[in-house]
Amino acid sequence: MDNKREVAIVGVGSTPFGEHWQKGLRDLALEASLEAVEEAGIRGKEIQEIYVGNMSGGMFVGQEHVAALAADFLGLNPVPAIRVEAACASGGVALRQGYISIASGLYDLVAVGGVEKMTDVEGTKATSALAGAMDMEWEAYFGTTFPGLYALMARRYMYEYGLTREQLAKVAVKNHFHGSFNPKAHFRNKLTVEDVEKSTLVADPLRVFDCCPMSDGAACVLLAPAEKARNYTDTPIVIEACTQASDTLSLFDRRDICTLDATREAAQQAFSQAKLSPKDIDVAEVHDCFTIAELLAIEDLGFCEKGRAAELYDEGQTYVGGKLPVNTDGGLKAGGHAVGATGIKQIVELVRQLRGEVEKERQVKDAEIGLAQNVGGSGATAVVTIVRRK
Amino acid sequence: MDNKREVAIVGVGSTPFGEHWQKGLRDLALEASLEAVEEAGIRGKEIQEIYVGNMSGGMFVGQEHVAALAADFLGLNPVPAIRVEAACASGGVALRQGYISIASGLYDLVAVGGVEKMTDVEGTKATSALAGAMDMEWEAYFGTTFPGLYALMARRYMYEYGLTREQLAKVAVKNHFHGSFNPKAHFRNKLTVEDVEKSTLVADPLRVFDCCPMSDGAACVLLAPAEKARNYTDTPIVIEACTQASDTLSLFDRRDICTLDATREAAQQAFSQAKLSPKDIDVAEVHDCFTIAELLAIEDLGFCEKGRAAELYDEGQTYVGGKLPVNTDGGLKAGGHAVGATGIKQIVELVRQLRGEVEKERQVKDAEIGLAQNVGGSGATAVVTIVRRK
Repeated sequence: MDNKREVAIVGVGSTPFGEHWQKGLRDLALEASLEAVEEAGIRGKEIQEIYVGNMSGGMFVGQEHVAALAADFLGLNPVPAIRVEAACASGGVALRQGYISIASGLYDLVAVGGVEKMTDVEGTKATSALAGAMDMEWEAYFGTTFPGLYALMARRYMYEYGLTREQLAKVAVKNHFHGSFNPKAHFRNKLTVEDVEKSTLVADPLRVFDCCPMSDGAACVLLAPAEKARNYTDTPIVIEACTQASDTLSLFDRRDICTLDATREAAQQAFSQAKLSPKDIDVAEVHDCFTIAELLAIEDLGFCEKGRAAELYDEGQTYVGGKLPVNTDGGLKAGGHAVGATGIKQIVELVRQLRGEVEKERQVKDAEIGLAQNVGGSGATAVVTIVRRK
Repeated sequence: MDNKREVAIVGVGSTPFGEHWQKGLRDLALEASLEAVEEAGIRGKEIQEIYVGNMSGGMFVGQEHVAALAADFLGLNPVPAIRVEAACASGGVALRQGYISIASGLYDLVAVGGVEKMTDVEGTKATSALAGAMDMEWEAYFGTTFPGLYALMARRYMYEYGLTREQLAKVAVKNHFHGSFNPKAHFRNKLTVEDVEKSTLVADPLRVFDCCPMSDGAACVLLAPAEKARNYTDTPIVIEACTQASDTLSLFDRRDICTLDATREAAQQAFSQAKLSPKDIDVAEVHDCFTIAELLAIEDLGFCEKGRAAELYDEGQTYVGGKLPVNTDGGLKAGGHAVGATGIKQIVELVRQLRGEVEKERQVKDAEIGLAQNVGGSGATAVVTIVRRK
């Protein structure tokens, strides 16, 4: 986009992630949006368009047409309301659509939200719904589940690169440590490596504490042209890049199941567009639906060579205070995973980190540039976003 | 969008709408896309981004992440693939996103498709899935179905404006007449008013022949900047406007259940943007999910005053050869309604009409300007598109 305008985030909001049995999609969407709207000091009527990331309102609670529901309950009619879906990357993809809307000059104030309710259905039905993110005819039909797919990646990675079970556990331990300081995290308990190792086996080698939970939750960001951002906030955070790439829907079709090519592609485009490199990133939110996924992300984003991510965890470098703090809100693992909302919640966390607003135990000092990676399915969709304090 | 480029449609394709029990979402998407790609004489690899309208792959066949599925099976990775959903307006909303992508200068060749598989599930499950387009908590929970909602509109309209049952039937008769000449229509049988009047009552006053069917099907359009359109086609069709508006999700919340305010709003914006008025339209595709919906559409789009649409049907003016030919492919009623694909199929029909390519019995002579109206739910979302032969 040659004629693009710089895009800023001028307000953010989120619900706690967890079990919200008293709240429907509309209530969660409203709660997150109001926080963002109040922060930016705007009236809702100033919003010109909304995008809503939602993976499966249909299979989880029977509700499609989720963007119209949100626009209605938020009192925003008649603005265009667009639901966007790319499995667990629905939030990231929605953000990219809002980014295009502002960057192109089409609108001057766009709300981008994500929302999901997952805990009101019984377990096997939720697992079936999530299977909709993989290839139903070529994967799910034969009995694969998501933990199963990521277990295949983990097992192959252990074989290729000598990763140990204990190193996998360190990802979960770190994310629960960060999550313990985040009042909006789904889980706030700390874990030890031993806790993870002793937890129930789900799909060998992955144990239950290698897996993120299913959560209810919503998150929202307000986007405006950077040139107008100071009308809304003293600390605008600019989106330097928001890129998306696709890969095969089925895991078996990939050239290498230890690499997410969609992440690599989106990351290369994002760094190129932002004129930055991985070493410039002060804080990262990556898609740790399973512990192995976080290690793959670190590598595919270019933070280290393939096969060497675990070293960063052995050295403690991905904790707040380390070289590359990762998932400072607890990530998906402890922070929670309300699938359609996750990609937006990652941005909310980065914005608050760059503003210096989070709890001191998990605040990255002087963070200026953040990166988020949001993945759909086993990697068929990836969105990479780079944000910067200006 | 001040800096916008003119957008042209340079290739179109569609499957027949109907029962495709041998074909999955991927097969339907491929079939429609290949037709468009071959028509434009491009290689798939030239496509830079894809949008896919799909209402409920999840509830109908368990498959979400439908855009990634399409990109994968069409061999388009790693281009961004975005599924867009707004119930039965999913196709129209996807078109608008593709339109923004080209108009903004972001990309030079974008594919926009719609796809749905509805006939592989048993009836009550399909009805439940469609209920996801209304408000689950405030409408569906209390037992409303879609025929029920439209029956409320029809009954009120009969009371307010003296519409007769026979006039409703004339909408179906006209659409089946047009559909009888369309080889891709779901139903190709002609109907008489008596056939409609004698058909099974579904939700008083609506009978089964007032209701569109559920179909399987897909459709695709290829978009490019108008300045480059002649690289692909001798008869580019330009999108003069593609506008979207929202209304309350629940019918009971509306100021008037005989008017779709979202249609009115989108139409006013579209005519204003295109610098045209309703009398300039040579052919229209409107969202006739039920016969009453077509009458409302004609009025809300501004083709006649509120309460007077039926006169056009009494006079036969909405047939090919009349003043305002409507649903020349049979509409949803006879052409079929593969919900996520319908908004794109409407555009495919308009493009072929403006090119003068359809069967002679249903070809509108010298048609230059066409309009499509695509509705989600009972009117919470509406998209209006105006296209023109250049």
